[in-house]
Amino acid sequence: MIHGKNFIGSELSAEGSGSFQTFSPLNLTELPELFVEATKMETELAVAKACEAYKIYKKKSGKEKAAFLRAIADEIELLGPELIGRACAESGLPEGRITGERGRTVGQLRLFASVLEDGSWVEASIDPAMPERKPMARPDIRKMLQSVGPVVVFTASNFPLAFSTAGGDTASALAAGNPVIVKVHPYHAGTNELVAGAIIRAAQKTDMPDGVFSSLNAFDFSVGQALVLHPEVKSVAFTGSFVGGKSLYELAQKREEPIPVFAEMGSVNPVLLLPEKVKENTAKLAATIAGSINLGAGQFCTNPGVLIALKSEETEVFKTELANQISQLLPEKMLHQNISKNFERKAKYIFENKEVAKLAESEKLSAELQGRPVVARVSGADFIANPNLAEEIFGPFSLLIECDGTNELTEVVKAFRGQLTASVIGTSGDITTFRDQIELLQEVVGRLIFNGMPTGVEVGYSMQHGGPFPASTDGRFTSIGVDAIKRFVRPVAFQDAPDGYLPDELKNANPLNIWRRVDGQLTKEPIKN
Amino acid sequence: MIHGKNFIGSELSAEGSGSFQTFSPLNLTELPELFVEATKMETELAVAKACEAYKIYKKKSGKEKAAFLRAIADEIELLGPELIGRACAESGLPEGRITGERGRTVGQLRLFASVLEDGSWVEASIDPAMPERKPMARPDIRKMLQSVGPVVVFTASNFPLAFSTAGGDTASALAAGNPVIVKVHPYHAGTNELVAGAIIRAAQKTDMPDGVFSSLNAFDFSVGQALVLHPEVKSVAFTGSFVGGKSLYELAQKREEPIPVFAEMGSVNPVLLLPEKVKENTAKLAATIAGSINLGAGQFCTNPGVLIALKSEETEVFKTELANQISQLLPEKMLHQNISKNFERKAKYIFENKEVAKLAESEKLSAELQGRPVVARVSGADFIANPNLAEEIFGPFSLLIECDGTNELTEVVKAFRGQLTASVIGTSGDITTFRDQIELLQEVVGRLIFNGMPTGVEVGYSMQHGGPFPASTDGRFTSIGVDAIKRFVRPVAFQDAPDGYLPDELKNANPLNIWRRVDGQLTKEPIKN
Repeated sequence: MIHGKNFIGSELSAEGSGSFQTFSPLNLTELPELFVEATKMETELAVAKACEAYKIYKKKSGKEKAAFLRAIADEIELLGPELIGRACAESGLPEGRITGERGRTVGQLRLFASVLEDGSWVEASIDPAMPERKPMARPDIRKMLQSVGPVVVFTASNFPLAFSTAGGDTASALAAGNPVIVKVHPYHAGTNELVAGAIIRAAQKTDMPDGVFSSLNAFDFSVGQALVLHPEVKSVAFTGSFVGGKSLYELAQKREEPIPVFAEMGSVNPVLLLPEKVKENTAKLAATIAGSINLGAGQFCTNPGVLIALKSEETEVFKTELANQISQLLPEKMLHQNISKNFERKAKYIFENKEVAKLAESEKLSAELQGRPVVARVSGADFIANPNLAEEIFGPFSLLIECDGTNELTEVVKAFRGQLTASVIGTSGDITTFRDQIELLQEVVGRLIFNGMPTGVEVGYSMQHGGPFPASTDGRFTSIGVDAIKRFVRPVAFQDAPDGYLPDELKNANPLNIWRRVDGQLTKEPIKN
Repeated sequence: MIHGKNFIGSELSAEGSGSFQTFSPLNLTELPELFVEATKMETELAVAKACEAYKIYKKKSGKEKAAFLRAIADEIELLGPELIGRACAESGLPEGRITGERGRTVGQLRLFASVLEDGSWVEASIDPAMPERKPMARPDIRKMLQSVGPVVVFTASNFPLAFSTAGGDTASALAAGNPVIVKVHPYHAGTNELVAGAIIRAAQKTDMPDGVFSSLNAFDFSVGQALVLHPEVKSVAFTGSFVGGKSLYELAQKREEPIPVFAEMGSVNPVLLLPEKVKENTAKLAATIAGSINLGAGQFCTNPGVLIALKSEETEVFKTELANQISQLLPEKMLHQNISKNFERKAKYIFENKEVAKLAESEKLSAELQGRPVVARVSGADFIANPNLAEEIFGPFSLLIECDGTNELTEVVKAFRGQLTASVIGTSGDITTFRDQIELLQEVVGRLIFNGMPTGVEVGYSMQHGGPFPASTDGRFTSIGVDAIKRFVRPVAFQDAPDGYLPDELKNANPLNIWRRVDGQLTKEPIKN
């Protein structure tokens, strides 16, 4: 049963007069439940509870926080078909995709739990005292990462589970020792409610303080803005559009105390098609690319929105193959009318640039809300003259840039701003020949992929999901994978602290048996005193 | 011989019409040499050269960059007495201090060289492929930190060597693989010129590309602003006032591509005087604190600008002792008339708050430009009502806050915003009794010191010099110590990259024999393929 209320910590609250319903792309109607928007007072209360909870939560051991994260994962799984059904209804995504996304969500939570159990993630560093050093004795200095305070998470439209209520942002912020306040995405408020309930139950079962998690319903910007501007909020995570992310970033910079906004704002993920490889198996390559463009109706921040190739006979063959593939693709449903309208508008508008030609579009459109796959084509020279053509069109769209020779290719590559990813499709010969151009791409991306599509992001230790601006507001951090935890911490050094005051991570005996940098060398050895 | 020109890479250039002289606090006159301000064109040229140099410099191995940093240290030492003399003349600081600062400067350069030679600092992380994983094969993903591009360094007034031309910012930015453009501080342009020459010679001797380092003279803000706004500049480091740092930060946020500004803007470094310890050896404690307040005429960002104590008989004794000590302190010369005038104005203006009383001031003022040590006193209640009283007064000033009981002490501690450091002066009993208050301080500082003064910052692996805003613009990073290098890098992931394309740090064989995180576990073992 969906109640439509806000979670102010464990308390359900619906004081407001505004409400909204979620929309189902499956039958193109609004779902019946009303979600009551959070009031100013409820927003204040959620932050106040988070501050109180922080005092207790920040002192929980890694193992205690791990138990909390594991309990969240368990509670999410216990929701069973109800969660899957609601997420499918609110997103229109097929059951297989939603089930997979749930697996990823609980997998992320358990991965962060294992990182906390291991404990070495805090980057403990110890420079023991040197009382005999001349001309001055050296004090004992020890450092580690610590939590920062309440974190606000803006959930994503395109991942109702894995980038939402208990997604990577929430998991990493909680793992780092911070309370989380979720600003609910109005497209899947019911899914959110189910997951928020699971988090609250997990918090209660593992003895976490009330206020460690809150969830606020909001249809427009006001709740989110109030959260970002609240002086007690210390960090913000966002996944969504450039306009949304940038405006939150600017808002946070206007505060008396500016705070970080980790906005992952998507990108066009250029795919560099190198000649030997294009020649090798043209049909298969075209099919792979077409599939990646259309995957999930192109609603991924890692969608291959730009293809770059050299003009050649092989590229002509590739174009024909790609056009065939695209024209035969079965369009998928998009998440919401707003997204679909926006896509249609932009995928049409780009052709008002006379230099942009339509290469192909799917002929299989059969129902409302479907995103029709489209591929456009522009010359390298025209693209260099107007690199704004590479602005993201969220949906199953890609722009093929055809370059007249290597020099033009180089200039095309140089025209790109920050990207989450770039792909290089090439033989080992290609990679040697075009090393300079690949290195130029490397300079503007967070992840450089060889002979693979950008869609599909691994959650692991080595993932980097975040590129130079405008792909992200802060390309020094990742929003996917273990290192996402580093967004919500800061280092603190202790000088000549008594062992009894120090956190376990820095105590002489190394009771947690973690890796520590002692005088610059990694070791698990205790410190002799 | 001082020539007064700008270094556009290795080229000396003086195209501008504006010029300035440096001032010597020793004899209160301007030194004869003219420094020609950089023009817009020269600024453009320095950035263009940095971009060209970056292409080559970023590919230099750790060992090659280490050789460059070691050569800079050697060249600085070779400058011998000429450098010491010039720095003393331009700062008025005693020879012992300047010699010590030179030691610290070359020590920092060599420390970063050793970090590069070791190589493990890049946080290499490898998740090998799992072709058999179900339901989908896992690709090979590898990640490491890489350089970002040209960095602009604004040098500090109060450390003509260690926080200036070849100071910690320059050393860490160069170590990270980025070219550096220094905006010269107009107080010590001659010292800068000597050190810049040393850097250029070192670059030539170790075969570094021209443009890896430039130095631009500037008396006002225009050159610095042009640098921060230049689209090819990727990061900024600054040490100085809140007003200066904040304005550069805001400027950088207004760019089409916002960039990080690491501004270390100083703080008041509260010293918490706990009752048992105050009782223990009152006279010695008062002498230590008085000495720290007056050290270098209080011109340190770690000066103890606030003392916090509980009202008691012992505190009365401490106050009398401190007043005695302060009144007998020999004032030291300040760096510049502007700094001294600013100090006098602020140290006078604070007493216009009627609740602030003068506890003591030195009676030994004997010459112009000396900074007269002053200690003021305010009640805890009055401070809580007006926490702005804790704004930094750059110079030998400190404000004693006397608290009426533990609750008031708690509220006083809560009133503090971000600080570089806080000190706790207490017995082990005190530390147990006041643990809550100490933990509140920990929440707002970069470094928590036990029974030590904040002045004196170690350059090592575990140092944290950077606190929450407004102490720094980004408390997640340090501007002193090995980890300062992390300011000027970002992670890049490689997916399924051929071994031949990968940087040495990520190659299967681990040819650099560095620590790498493989599937989350630290190891130096190679990857089997």
